[in-house]
Amino acid sequence: MTSTERPAEDPSRPYRIEPDTRHSPQIGALLEMLAYARLTTLQAVQGLSVEQLDATPPGFRNSIGMLLAHIAAVDRVYHWLSFGGRDPFTESIPEFDPYRSGLTMGAEGEPVRGRPLAWYLDELETSRGHTLATLAQRDDAWLASRLSVPGFDFPNHHWAWFHVMEDEVSHRGQIRLLRNIVAPKPAATAE
Amino acid sequence: MTSTERPAEDPSRPYRIEPDTRHSPQIGALLEMLAYARLTTLQAVQGLSVEQLDATPPGFRNSIGMLLAHIAAVDRVYHWLSFGGRDPFTESIPEFDPYRSGLTMGAEGEPVRGRPLAWYLDELETSRGHTLATLAQRDDAWLASRLSVPGFDFPNHHWAWFHVMEDEVSHRGQIRLLRNIVAPKPAATAE
Repeated sequence: MTSTERPAEDPSRPYRIEPDTRHSPQIGALLEMLAYARLTTLQAVQGLSVEQLDATPPGFRNSIGMLLAHIAAVDRVYHWLSFGGRDPFTESIPEFDPYRSGLTMGAEGEPVRGRPLAWYLDELETSRGHTLATLAQRDDAWLASRLSVPGFDFPNHHWAWFHVMEDEVSHRGQIRLLRNIVAPKPAATAE
Repeated sequence: MTSTERPAEDPSRPYRIEPDTRHSPQIGALLEMLAYARLTTLQAVQGLSVEQLDATPPGFRNSIGMLLAHIAAVDRVYHWLSFGGRDPFTESIPEFDPYRSGLTMGAEGEPVRGRPLAWYLDELETSRGHTLATLAQRDDAWLASRLSVPGFDFPNHHWAWFHVMEDEVSHRGQIRLLRNIVAPKPAATAE
């Protein structure tokens, strides 16, 4: 095995919360949960075409692409709220403007349409990358402390990043329903 | 204030992960996450009628009632898998039979229909009650250890109960979509 080769990953690894001991224990557990949630999101959208990503079937309000843009934007808004102590909901933050459409499910900003899956995957990786790199530098005392955003100072950072994970999982559940319609399998798929 | 009165709960409390120090730290954090997930599930189904709980709109496979029965059954199956080291998927466990329909989304057992919301809420509380009472008696060393079920011994208990929470959140996301259809509000609701 050369230095560029890695051993095959154990396919059972995602089914264990085994926090990296380089992190504070609660930060480490949260990183494991974020990783599991993301793995299942990526599985739920694998192989989808532009048309499938853009489809909004009768009864639904959002396309799978819109939900993916939202998932990425939720990381981005919590970068400001939790890491930055600033509120893109009430404050003008030009750097955040490109993500307002995803955050608001298209109510503000440019609609998210016509993008290939790779575009969403790239944005998901970029936004989550900043989350993971920053959390890795924090500790459990910070995680337990409260946000410093005026008017939104009652949550603590632990809830904030738990919420980013659980919001992704909630929308992944919705993506699975949408996928059943826009990319049905011959046999029944899991919901 | 008499002894039977409690102070009003702080409405901002759910937005903090503040583990009860009587528990091991990771057990305590997990209990906070389970509580938040359940709170949001209960909010998502508040006030629904039997007809609304039973409806399966075009494109959907499951009713909100079916999803609620599933959420309760997932706690019950992990009682056996995690607390009991036994597998209701491969082993005949008559006590589990009433929950097979919920677990399999109606593929096995009696269909779940015609029940009022109170019936689902009672079953959700009963099944979760056993989860919470048992987790409160365990510690983080147990949580990090692996299940002892033959063929399903690769997950650890931490993942198992995280998964119970994240599966609930995934279906809560689906319930929100269903509610938009079966109980639409005049104004847009959150997804």
